[in-house]
Amino acid sequence: MRMYDIIKKKRDGGELTTEEIGFFIRGVTDGSIPDYQISALCMAIWFRGMTVRETCDLTFAVRDSGERVDFSSIRGVRVDKHSTGGVGDKTSLVVAPIVASFGVKVAKMSGRGLGHTGGTVDKLEAIAGFRTTLSDEEFIRQVNEIGLTIVGQSKQFAPADKKLYALRDVTATVDSMPLIASSIMGKKLAADDDCIVLDVKTGSGSFMKTVEDSRALARLMVDIGKNAGKKMVALITNMDMPLGNAIGNALEVIEAVETLKGRGPADLTAVCLTLAGRMLSLAGMGAPEVCEERAKRAIEDGSALKKLMETVAAQGGDAECIADPARFPRAKYTRDVLSPHTGYIAHVDTEAYGLASLALGAGRNTAEDAIDYSAGIMLGKKTGDFVQQGEKIATMYADSPDLFAAAEARFLGATQFSEEKPEAEPLVYDIIE
Amino acid sequence: MRMYDIIKKKRDGGELTTEEIGFFIRGVTDGSIPDYQISALCMAIWFRGMTVRETCDLTFAVRDSGERVDFSSIRGVRVDKHSTGGVGDKTSLVVAPIVASFGVKVAKMSGRGLGHTGGTVDKLEAIAGFRTTLSDEEFIRQVNEIGLTIVGQSKQFAPADKKLYALRDVTATVDSMPLIASSIMGKKLAADDDCIVLDVKTGSGSFMKTVEDSRALARLMVDIGKNAGKKMVALITNMDMPLGNAIGNALEVIEAVETLKGRGPADLTAVCLTLAGRMLSLAGMGAPEVCEERAKRAIEDGSALKKLMETVAAQGGDAECIADPARFPRAKYTRDVLSPHTGYIAHVDTEAYGLASLALGAGRNTAEDAIDYSAGIMLGKKTGDFVQQGEKIATMYADSPDLFAAAEARFLGATQFSEEKPEAEPLVYDIIE
Repeated sequence: MRMYDIIKKKRDGGELTTEEIGFFIRGVTDGSIPDYQISALCMAIWFRGMTVRETCDLTFAVRDSGERVDFSSIRGVRVDKHSTGGVGDKTSLVVAPIVASFGVKVAKMSGRGLGHTGGTVDKLEAIAGFRTTLSDEEFIRQVNEIGLTIVGQSKQFAPADKKLYALRDVTATVDSMPLIASSIMGKKLAADDDCIVLDVKTGSGSFMKTVEDSRALARLMVDIGKNAGKKMVALITNMDMPLGNAIGNALEVIEAVETLKGRGPADLTAVCLTLAGRMLSLAGMGAPEVCEERAKRAIEDGSALKKLMETVAAQGGDAECIADPARFPRAKYTRDVLSPHTGYIAHVDTEAYGLASLALGAGRNTAEDAIDYSAGIMLGKKTGDFVQQGEKIATMYADSPDLFAAAEARFLGATQFSEEKPEAEPLVYDIIE
Repeated sequence: MRMYDIIKKKRDGGELTTEEIGFFIRGVTDGSIPDYQISALCMAIWFRGMTVRETCDLTFAVRDSGERVDFSSIRGVRVDKHSTGGVGDKTSLVVAPIVASFGVKVAKMSGRGLGHTGGTVDKLEAIAGFRTTLSDEEFIRQVNEIGLTIVGQSKQFAPADKKLYALRDVTATVDSMPLIASSIMGKKLAADDDCIVLDVKTGSGSFMKTVEDSRALARLMVDIGKNAGKKMVALITNMDMPLGNAIGNALEVIEAVETLKGRGPADLTAVCLTLAGRMLSLAGMGAPEVCEERAKRAIEDGSALKKLMETVAAQGGDAECIADPARFPRAKYTRDVLSPHTGYIAHVDTEAYGLASLALGAGRNTAEDAIDYSAGIMLGKKTGDFVQQGEKIATMYADSPDLFAAAEARFLGATQFSEEKPEAEPLVYDIIE
């Protein structure tokens, strides 16, 4: 088998066989296929696409390119939620404790933030003492005892994806549906969950800018997961504005805690309840609507908050800060952002909001950058709100006042005003089963 | 400027600017753009194509990536002919002496054969003593004194093309019209001719398999040349069977010499006269038909043959072998290929004929291979001829009898027979001015 023939076949619109895809991914993993042939094939895939069968084969080959996790010693149904990434997306911190409070197991391996998107592991590290690296034994024991563990990805999951993504990133071949789906699902399936709820973000703060694209990606990933024997559902949720009001690590943990106390922003609460309902339902706890009601009660009766405190304590974190958010690190400097116009906030470029927060120190441009856990943005007004000129629309947090000017310019440049109230967009566009 | 943006722009169907194309080719030449980005762009170009303007810019950037030749000290009009490569194509050995016999200057830098195609330099080296490497001074002096010099490409012509071609060759991006045209013309324009006649081969022995593709490539290359201020014309000629009967270096020189003596095969003679007529016409010697008649007379009166003998002698070769072809090296072994069928030869895979000759030792698989100048194939019958089962259709020449079996199998496998006489194809399909 020759890589040349595989490139040519795909270039000419052919369907690659399981063996050809396996040959390709083995060659990516062991380095026997040179980068220039990998990138040529990625570009041909960008143009020609892949069938569901090819995409499944690609996903499974990516999954099998490295270590896999064995969750067989976890007792009970294992369910996970995966977000395609957004701005202000702290849903994992809310839904994982809700679901675990019902005895459903959540053995979560999360990522770090990069670029405009945040990562759950970074957010948790805003809690003093919280350990995001556990041994396999600690990890499994905690899931069995408490029902919830959240750690970073220490395993060599899907190394083929790492190599492929690095090349796609510099060759304009990232935004290809089969390549995105196989990248996400290849890593996800390397963990050993029974049920997976996908949260496919759509809009200006997400990778998928249109609902149609998001729906197609969700459909594809659900089909891949089912092919791998998983129970699957995907939600298409709105990322045309940040979820909730907090952007930045400590700020987002505080907002998640407030949500578990029943005082969270309406949009964040609603999305979390839908996600948690679907997770519980997949885990066999009843119909989605019934499960959503149960999730609501887990907030009201404090059992979800208690589960988060147990988890934080088990992983060495300062659980008291969950009870009293004043214990979180505070930024040295704050600045209010004032509206330059009178009118409605018509649309925001959510990705730019994420980049403004990154500029304040809350994120990282490269994987090596250090982050400032206290930095970020609290939104005072969001899309659809009416504001007077000079009225506060957000507060910025940073370690140095020098960081504000550029972040504020980016923030205001990403905020559009109009005289007419914009039509409200749904929080959840669709559910793909 | 970033290579990423250039790839993305082309991927999305955009037209690259002169500056973007210049940036790309400079980066290819100095190695600052990594191979994986080069191959991704080549694949995007394969899918999206390029405008004539982009292709001209690409060609000129390739031309300017290395050394250029200064022909300004050559007195008189300089005309060259370039073939896109075929099997049995010894036209340069015929047309260059014809044209030079009229005082038009032919300062020819030719290539070597690779794969199924032959190269003029290899053919000339079949003549004992013939030097294909001359100093710049020797080269220019000989053109001025005799009117004709034929050497190999010793200059670092268009190094960007060398790099690009090597990558295209392994990433299935060779057969892209703008990439082919800029590759051929980038090298061709690095030499300093006034007039260029392109011989675009079409059919089973050439790169372009259809007349339509050949016509499009010819149109594009003629336009590029005109944009560079050259007088241009392109012939679309038949390479659906070998040109003439000889395939192999010494065999082809002998056939070329026979043609200059007025005893050449009809097809080879006809194509050579058309080419020479067009070369003379571009050089200002009159209308193409008039010039073709003049070319014919240069064969009849022996002036073209005399010019070849002068050239061979000037470059250290044994000019006597032109007068007496028995002086050429002879293969140790010959084998007749007999027809397995009674019927017409309906079609031949000319590329496979070239590869059969290569297998006999006449060609090279890689640039480092040594070649056997005496090896090759003499066709006894060609497409359209009627043959009896057991009748000789070709004779093979090789240095070892062990080489015959594989070459004969390839040869016969590439020869189709039928009961009906196939329709004759034209020798010259079109002339693009």
